[in-house]
Amino acid sequence: MARAKEWRLRPAAVRQHCRQGNWDQPTSGLAPGFAQANMVILDRRYAFDFLLFCQRNPKPCPILEVLEPGQKEPRRTAPGADITRDLPRYRIWTKGKPDREVTDIQACFNADLVAFLLGCSFSFEEALLQAGVPVRNIEEHKNVSMYTTNRACDPAGPFSSRLVVTMRPIPDPLVPRAVQITSRYASVHGAPVHIGHPRVLGIKNLDRPDFGDPVTLKKGETPVFWACGVTSTLAALSAKPELCITHAPGHMFITDVPNETLAVI
Amino acid sequence: MARAKEWRLRPAAVRQHCRQGNWDQPTSGLAPGFAQANMVILDRRYAFDFLLFCQRNPKPCPILEVLEPGQKEPRRTAPGADITRDLPRYRIWTKGKPDREVTDIQACFNADLVAFLLGCSFSFEEALLQAGVPVRNIEEHKNVSMYTTNRACDPAGPFSSRLVVTMRPIPDPLVPRAVQITSRYASVHGAPVHIGHPRVLGIKNLDRPDFGDPVTLKKGETPVFWACGVTSTLAALSAKPELCITHAPGHMFITDVPNETLAVI
Repeated sequence: MARAKEWRLRPAAVRQHCRQGNWDQPTSGLAPGFAQANMVILDRRYAFDFLLFCQRNPKPCPILEVLEPGQKEPRRTAPGADITRDLPRYRIWTKGKPDREVTDIQACFNADLVAFLLGCSFSFEEALLQAGVPVRNIEEHKNVSMYTTNRACDPAGPFSSRLVVTMRPIPDPLVPRAVQITSRYASVHGAPVHIGHPRVLGIKNLDRPDFGDPVTLKKGETPVFWACGVTSTLAALSAKPELCITHAPGHMFITDVPNETLAVI
Repeated sequence: MARAKEWRLRPAAVRQHCRQGNWDQPTSGLAPGFAQANMVILDRRYAFDFLLFCQRNPKPCPILEVLEPGQKEPRRTAPGADITRDLPRYRIWTKGKPDREVTDIQACFNADLVAFLLGCSFSFEEALLQAGVPVRNIEEHKNVSMYTTNRACDPAGPFSSRLVVTMRPIPDPLVPRAVQITSRYASVHGAPVHIGHPRVLGIKNLDRPDFGDPVTLKKGETPVFWACGVTSTLAALSAKPELCITHAPGHMFITDVPNETLAVI
């Protein structure tokens, strides 16, 4: 699919392109208006502890849907979809280490695997833009800057992780507005976890993110930090499961859920 | 403990009275300002499916804390407490049927049991009162009116239930205010699920609640319906587990969580 022409496709159409092998690129900007999801797949014997980890850490790990063991169709967030074929690219992890990337996981999916779909900050970026709050990573056509912080998540069973955050430079007068807007979106990371002081989070150099790209922080802007879904991947891997499958970074699952329905009030 | 004198005790002091066998009465009005919780205890083999049921039905089943198998101390919501002794009264269910009521469950608790603590509408009733919205069941010194509706919850594994709601008559001009206030408290049932039409929910006669007491609905008032934590008990029992332990109705677990910290914005 030619990006310029197709990016306004509806979610089901984008998923169809992924399924047919016509799209294996990042999903940022695709199907605007609809929630995109992080995905983590684990064996059912980890399912309670991992769900509990997400419940205890809802800011980095906001659950959009959990599928029954062996189930491929996310009936609640994307009826008719198939999570083994409809993401553009997957990453397969063995004992917590990256093994390979593939464009479908039909061959390794089985009846004991449980898929977790988690909210993604693409949803609130759209709301920020609509409210006149600039989003630097979109302006600069970059991946958002992500940092592993010094804050420990609340562990559950074998799962633990430090909190990963995204950073967006916000013009000082718009910081309260950015807090208000993202507070509405609790199921996609919600309000910031910190405003203004990278060192408080153990971040020494904003120009050297742990994941993603650095972006420009201008004079008169404040770095604002939100919890990041990458935390869920790190947590899943922390248990060193024999098999873990995730979306490849930036290659999200596109749901049928309109972003606006995620707003709490 | 003499009610009139002691009702302003802090949560830990109330729990201590329960633990020592000095209090086995309902907890409404005790430790004002702090969240009270519904409790459901199930064997670990049900834990994932029950947590998933709660995740899929967050309005009736808002999770405050889930304890690890065999764990008695709710470290997050009431450090130092013991859920096997600190509720005033428990109900024990065998294969989904009520078996007996007891004032502590130390004898039947074991390493495979998982305790779920769920939010309770006592928290938002306090917020309504503070905002000048009357709460009829409190005015009339009654238990809130509860009704089993015609709405099915989203099932998970062996767990299913119809949605149970509470009803509070709200003066017509204050209905929007009541929606605004309770919307802030997503972790204690949140916004109403319905406003105004009992029959839409399958409720034929407001004067005959399925649980709790009827209250007076005055001219110029609208019946407003919120999701109710009793749903979580019905769901737990729907799987007919060999053993299920809950709080006895109205005899809640009192946490150290200030109600105000539950407000999302």
